Amino acid sequence: MATYLPPFRNQSPYLPFGEQRTGRFYGKDILSVKQFNRSDLEYIFGVAHEMREMVERIGTFDLLKGKILANLFYEPSTRTSSSFTSAMERLGGSVIPINEVRYSSVAKGESLPDTVRTLECYADVIVLRHPEIGASALAAQYARKPIINAGDGVGEHPTQALLDLFTIVGELNHVDGLTVTMLGDLKYGRTVHSLARLLSLYDVRLNYVSPEILKMPSEIIAELDEKGIVQKEYTSLESVLPYTDVLYVTRVQKERFENQDEYESVKGAYVITPAIMQDAKDRMIVMHPLPRVGEISLEFDQDPRAAYFRQMEYGLYVRMALLAMVLGRA
Amino acid sequence: MATYLPPFRNQSPYLPFGEQRTGRFYGKDILSVKQFNRSDLEYIFGVAHEMREMVERIGTFDLLKGKILANLFYEPSTRTSSSFTSAMERLGGSVIPINEVRYSSVAKGESLPDTVRTLECYADVIVLRHPEIGASALAAQYARKPIINAGDGVGEHPTQALLDLFTIVGELNHVDGLTVTMLGDLKYGRTVHSLARLLSLYDVRLNYVSPEILKMPSEIIAELDEKGIVQKEYTSLESVLPYTDVLYVTRVQKERFENQDEYESVKGAYVITPAIMQDAKDRMIVMHPLPRVGEISLEFDQDPRAAYFRQMEYGLYVRMALLAMVLGRA
Amino acid sequence: MATYLPPFRNQSPYLPFGEQRTGRFYGKDILSVKQFNRSDLEYIFGVAHEMREMVERIGTFDLLKGKILANLFYEPSTRTSSSFTSAMERLGGSVIPINEVRYSSVAKGESLPDTVRTLECYADVIVLRHPEIGASALAAQYARKPIINAGDGVGEHPTQALLDLFTIVGELNHVDGLTVTMLGDLKYGRTVHSLARLLSLYDVRLNYVSPEILKMPSEIIAELDEKGIVQKEYTSLESVLPYTDVLYVTRVQKERFENQDEYESVKGAYVITPAIMQDAKDRMIVMHPLPRVGEISLEFDQDPRAAYFRQMEYGLYVRMALLAMVLGRA
Repeated sequence: MATYLPPFRNQSPYLPFGEQRTGRFYGKDILSVKQFNRSDLEYIFGVAHEMREMVERIGTFDLLKGKILANLFYEPSTRTSSSFTSAMERLGGSVIPINEVRYSSVAKGESLPDTVRTLECYADVIVLRHPEIGASALAAQYARKPIINAGDGVGEHPTQALLDLFTIVGELNHVDGLTVTMLGDLKYGRTVHSLARLLSLYDVRLNYVSPEILKMPSEIIAELDEKGIVQKEYTSLESVLPYTDVLYVTRVQKERFENQDEYESVKGAYVITPAIMQDAKDRMIVMHPLPRVGEISLEFDQDPRAAYFRQMEYGLYVRMALLAMVLGRA
Repeated sequence: MATYLPPFRNQSPYLPFGEQRTGRFYGKDILSVKQFNRSDLEYIFGVAHEMREMVERIGTFDLLKGKILANLFYEPSTRTSSSFTSAMERLGGSVIPINEVRYSSVAKGESLPDTVRTLECYADVIVLRHPEIGASALAAQYARKPIINAGDGVGEHPTQALLDLFTIVGELNHVDGLTVTMLGDLKYGRTVHSLARLLSLYDVRLNYVSPEILKMPSEIIAELDEKGIVQKEYTSLESVLPYTDVLYVTRVQKERFENQDEYESVKGAYVITPAIMQDAKDRMIVMHPLPRVGEISLEFDQDPRAAYFRQMEYGLYVRMALLAMVLGRA
Repeated sequence: MATYLPPFRNQSPYLPFGEQRTGRFYGKDILSVKQFNRSDLEYIFGVAHEMREMVERIGTFDLLKGKILANLFYEPSTRTSSSFTSAMERLGGSVIPINEVRYSSVAKGESLPDTVRTLECYADVIVLRHPEIGASALAAQYARKPIINAGDGVGEHPTQALLDLFTIVGELNHVDGLTVTMLGDLKYGRTVHSLARLLSLYDVRLNYVSPEILKMPSEIIAELDEKGIVQKEYTSLESVLPYTDVLYVTRVQKERFENQDEYESVKGAYVITPAIMQDAKDRMIVMHPLPRVGEISLEFDQDPRAAYFRQMEYGLYVRMALLAMVLGRA
């Protein structure tokens, strides 16, 4: 007598009659940069490039019309949240914004798997930002619909790494052969960890410039070493700046230092100014995941090498690409 | 000289030229389960069933394109808020999300009637969640546009009761003749109160299983008694589980108990596990309004009788139906 | 080798191939009432009037389909935020709601210029509410996309002033020759300051009724004096009410008074009731920026002269007009 729905449908979202879904990422989760090879990246950037062309030519289009994104943010991130919202809306889809999770059923003690299984009743794809490492993988384990990791604590933030790499591709046309210098807090910055891993798929040379106490973790250096990536560590930018193609600046947080005098000296040493940049190539770019708090002087913003606001725009195209891909439309 | 707009328009929303509005709920408020008879419920579930078919076949459609829902939540409820947002978006409409009311004009002391009369200038329908009993009725008294009660304190949560009943219909195909067992906190749970009232329109048998201090209120038992509903009270699930068709589990909140030992013993006694469910029918369903915090073990989730996540999905269809109905499109 | 995007595009938003943009406000910021002359106001109100007709005839239309509004609120304002959201959605556009800025990158110390330059990567127009005077002008200085000031501290709130004036036009058909009486807190209320400035473009007579300590600032009186506007100050409404065409009521906030007895006496003296309004003309209107907290008795709401809820609706049309105009569609 009962007409049970199957308790668990297959992993892929429902396919309405007559609709064609394509693409290697259809129904997939985006959890970690480790899941991508070079071919995947070319595929993603190819779609992202098309998105850019479409946005520049016609603004928006209805590729994901009728699709709903649940934007589930357990910690605030205006930048990332807005970027995904815009990406979904530029594709004609809708967004369920969930920003105040602390006050809601989660606050009442609901588990992440239950929250995700509820939201997938309402949405076609879930973007998740969570303070705990591994949260996205846990969510993906329970969800039938695709999960996109928008940052899980000190863990991963794969869409940031993808947009960083797409920025390099978009600005400099290629990755192989480049010298990438990472500057600032390389110990705690998940951004540089993920980007370093993605870059290790290419033939690049990496420079790490940081204070002693904020060096790139040895396990990441070892991981890239095995892949044959040339990596060098420095405490000063001076010697590497002249031959750097990509300078990736990150914020050095005061809280990391026990000795505030040490912080002040370090902070001052790593500020990018027009004067310092006179030693850099004419054709190179300066990137920053933003927000910045003094690491790059405002005077440098008008330099054509200042790529950090364009970086935000590349992020939009990458996120449009990812949403279209996991929903089978690219 | 003045071209006054009429100070109060008629109760029904404005009807653009050439548009046909139909349906018995057009322009009506949804405030209480008490406003429905069996014929109403059949009508609602008929529309909800159509919504389900449309969503499964084509995902979304533009029945409410151009309509705007003001989602006015004076207290947080991710689940209900997301459900209404998704319902409106799946019908092609738009949503004004208002979740931080505590910081806004209400915090400045504005009265609910003024807030509602402001919002109806911007929206076509208002969904209201409010901590005070009777808030929705008050809002409806002042509003020209339809109000849907999404929970008013310990008062009503009619759309929850409707989705609960629609779940039963969807899973078991009928209601007459069923034995429904309600478990847990039957004293404070407005969910079970509203559902019991709705079920009293049918030929059902009700079992109430709860600790002594959390029994179903006597006024509800009296109300259903008058309608000839057979109701029995228990403190243990054991004897009634074997012949239960619908087991409706609710959360027992620690705060209700003065004696914490008593809470611990009760809490343990009412946990649904695969082992306990061996005594239940093969064809029955377990429901829960969610969030759960231990009342149903995760191991039971994969049992086909576990209907609580499907219940969320039925909720989407019911809310789509209600929105379409009060806006004259169904 | 690099394919740099220009670091700063021209001030106007991107113009897709084949699209025509028109209008004197295309690509412009809306920052202050001081930027408008009478011809501008006629233009705005003409578009707003068309918006009203379209909404009343067909509800919504797709004039801004594909356009995205970033609704950036550094302080909460349900009313203004909802109004802009509705305006954008009624024009077929989408909204990125950013209401919890205090928790986000701003809280991490990001500067307003950086936030704005990030958001304009995702949106086509930015509505900004900020607690600091001059914030919108600062944002506009850095942004390539149009900024609409939705209130900057004790500074300006130009869209409120425009909707106030549009209400007068809509209700009374003309402005020249009217007597406008402003009542309540005229010292701190930016609303009355901005409206007085706009009214000074017309041939009006202004009465200021306030307690001694909350009088209209002398610099505004001087400013209007220069333009030849007749202004008179009173502490009691009695003598001016009979010949008032527009009574603009504002809230007197308790916090402004050192002596609470004084507050109580003043508060009582300025409450609009049906009895008091017997001395007013039949053809006049009572306005209020809302929220009200007792300044106008609920009993007066049903009087046809009570225009404050219609005022909210006029606000929708004005904001629709402004959005369409700065995006080149009107």
